[in-house]
Amino acid sequence: MKRIAILGSTGSIGRNSLRVLENLGKEYVPYALSCYSDVNLLVQQALHYHPQVVALVNNEKISILEEKLKGTRIKILSGEEGLCEIAELEKLDLLLNAIIGSAGFLPTLIAVRKGKRIALANKETLVSFGQIIMEELKNNKSEIIPVDSEHSAIFQCINGRADSTIKRIILTSSGGPFRKRKDLSNVTIEDTLNHPVWRMGKKITVDSATMMNKALEIVEAHFLFNVPAQDISVVIHPQCIIHSAVEFVDGSIIAQLSNPDMALPIQYALTFPERKQSITKPLDLTEIASLTFEPPTATAILALSLAYRAIEKGGTTTAVLNASNEVLVDAFLSEKIPLNKITEIINSIINKHSSIKDPTIEEIKEAENWARKEAEKQVNNIRPKTADHRPQAKKKNVLNGQN
Amino acid sequence: MKRIAILGSTGSIGRNSLRVLENLGKEYVPYALSCYSDVNLLVQQALHYHPQVVALVNNEKISILEEKLKGTRIKILSGEEGLCEIAELEKLDLLLNAIIGSAGFLPTLIAVRKGKRIALANKETLVSFGQIIMEELKNNKSEIIPVDSEHSAIFQCINGRADSTIKRIILTSSGGPFRKRKDLSNVTIEDTLNHPVWRMGKKITVDSATMMNKALEIVEAHFLFNVPAQDISVVIHPQCIIHSAVEFVDGSIIAQLSNPDMALPIQYALTFPERKQSITKPLDLTEIASLTFEPPTATAILALSLAYRAIEKGGTTTAVLNASNEVLVDAFLSEKIPLNKITEIINSIINKHSSIKDPTIEEIKEAENWARKEAEKQVNNIRPKTADHRPQAKKKNVLNGQN
Repeated sequence: MKRIAILGSTGSIGRNSLRVLENLGKEYVPYALSCYSDVNLLVQQALHYHPQVVALVNNEKISILEEKLKGTRIKILSGEEGLCEIAELEKLDLLLNAIIGSAGFLPTLIAVRKGKRIALANKETLVSFGQIIMEELKNNKSEIIPVDSEHSAIFQCINGRADSTIKRIILTSSGGPFRKRKDLSNVTIEDTLNHPVWRMGKKITVDSATMMNKALEIVEAHFLFNVPAQDISVVIHPQCIIHSAVEFVDGSIIAQLSNPDMALPIQYALTFPERKQSITKPLDLTEIASLTFEPPTATAILALSLAYRAIEKGGTTTAVLNASNEVLVDAFLSEKIPLNKITEIINSIINKHSSIKDPTIEEIKEAENWARKEAEKQVNNIRPKTADHRPQAKKKNVLNGQN
Repeated sequence: MKRIAILGSTGSIGRNSLRVLENLGKEYVPYALSCYSDVNLLVQQALHYHPQVVALVNNEKISILEEKLKGTRIKILSGEEGLCEIAELEKLDLLLNAIIGSAGFLPTLIAVRKGKRIALANKETLVSFGQIIMEELKNNKSEIIPVDSEHSAIFQCINGRADSTIKRIILTSSGGPFRKRKDLSNVTIEDTLNHPVWRMGKKITVDSATMMNKALEIVEAHFLFNVPAQDISVVIHPQCIIHSAVEFVDGSIIAQLSNPDMALPIQYALTFPERKQSITKPLDLTEIASLTFEPPTATAILALSLAYRAIEKGGTTTAVLNASNEVLVDAFLSEKIPLNKITEIINSIINKHSSIKDPTIEEIKEAENWARKEAEKQVNNIRPKTADHRPQAKKKNVLNGQN
């Protein structure tokens, strides 16, 4: 029997994970569930799956949870401490970390130190704290199995073992909804959230439109597989069938293919090194008929170059990349900035950042805070779109007047 | 240092192997070379690579070899016994068996019993004697690494280890030169030998046109990877970039890709589980731009069904499949039968064959002889094309006369 904790059980990955666990049957038990604030869904999940423990990060709603779970034997935890308590539960076999944001780091660190297996869907753990986590992994018998479809693909291609004969990692990308567009300055939020292949949360869907998701994935792959940034390349593959590939020194490429369905990489992270029957629809290559590949567009290359430069600058810079992106995605979703400004502002923040080498956790958090403030400042310097044009027009008149 | 013997060093695979060994450098030494009768090339290779041993199967030309290698310390062997002597050389680390035809079996068997690694490019070893060889492998510390691009791909996808979670093997095929043709009754020898992707020997190029190569590969894969016939499917993939793939029980597919170049699977068989820099041109997916997949045509399905039926009948039937095909390819190349007759005649021979279960080597050889005679008989029953029409015309006249 394997006892599984799902941190972020009410999100897209979390809900998929519960479907996967149902399919896997009695051998895999939902042992603990947590969410940030969707107390109603958490209650529903708790009453359906009967975990031993649930945690709600948002303390304000804890009384609702207590009320609804009265009479059950389910232990209730709260706050970010609750997540950490789950990560160190003695009987826990596997921590599936599907938390969005920096709050995902601490539970990962604790689980690593406790020697647990971690199915990792939290980007921040690696993007911001990659150096620290990979160092800790060396000294513990813990292991991280990636849940991201791309990193799961790479992990499957190398059979989960460090491989010194990797020549290049080929990250594939759908290209997002604006694959064919050159200018992202006037795309709407609605268009942006309409991803051609994957149904995901808002944040990651915006990241997919700016290609910042791929930039973050480059950083993740760099830390997880210990591959230098220049040996990670991105190929646009609109059908999302090849989820990524690894080229070896002899020129052989091993690729992982399937219909796009998060249930597959989630399950693989749970069952590795085993494989079990899954709910993913089998792939029929003759039905797909054609797989196509394109180089990234200039817009995409700008986003990707942020990752290469952040890795090159090293230290706290990848955390800055991620933190500033978070703020800017929010700003776009609140209609404060156009989509194309996201990478532009991140670029200027990375340039401005004084990176700290071999940083401590505290130094990384400070760098994140600095990046967030810096991003907010730059957002405020940009006037809303309609207002934006007027002063320009005025300016033009003045200039005209001068002529 | 690894001492390598190349049986069939003057053939297409043999010559490629020597290029691969040159690239690999001093660690891999050509220790023994052999060929059937191309004594001039064998001499050239011997004087260039300085093997310890050479063998010439065709005894009639042995004096030429002795004359030309006079003064060197190279030991000369002859006949099929010579091949067997090479296979059991004490210092030999790896036997690369690139012999065409049944003569390839005995050296493989000897090498298996001696616990040597075998890089196998000889089809007959598995198609005709698969059951015997796989049984022997269980009792010896020998290992067979396939050299065929398809089987090498599968081997790479499962990391060279037996895997109980294989759901299906997907053998890819270029579709051969007549992929779009429905009727193969009047194709020329010239068209047949003009393969769209691979430059290979005549026999295998004809097999590629009839899809009998894929039928034989199904049988090989069945024995080598212990996968039932119904779990091996064939997909037409004209670009020959995905060399084959494995679908696992969870729906994940692992595929191996590269530019088509035999140097890569040959080298992998030599260096496994390592990988080394190779002479194969790296693959650029964006340059390839599109990979396409089609189901096999009706003509192809007829050829493939012969493999499924031969495996199902079992015992000596796969040897009969192979032996009759050999005779019929010769008959086609001698303009005795049209191309479409090959699979038609094999079909009738398989129907006629009384299979022997768990056969001995002798029983397999007898079945092969029976199949060859049977094939010759059926070839002789078909008159040459021009002569073929005349009697039909006469017959018609007779019939007309009756009306």
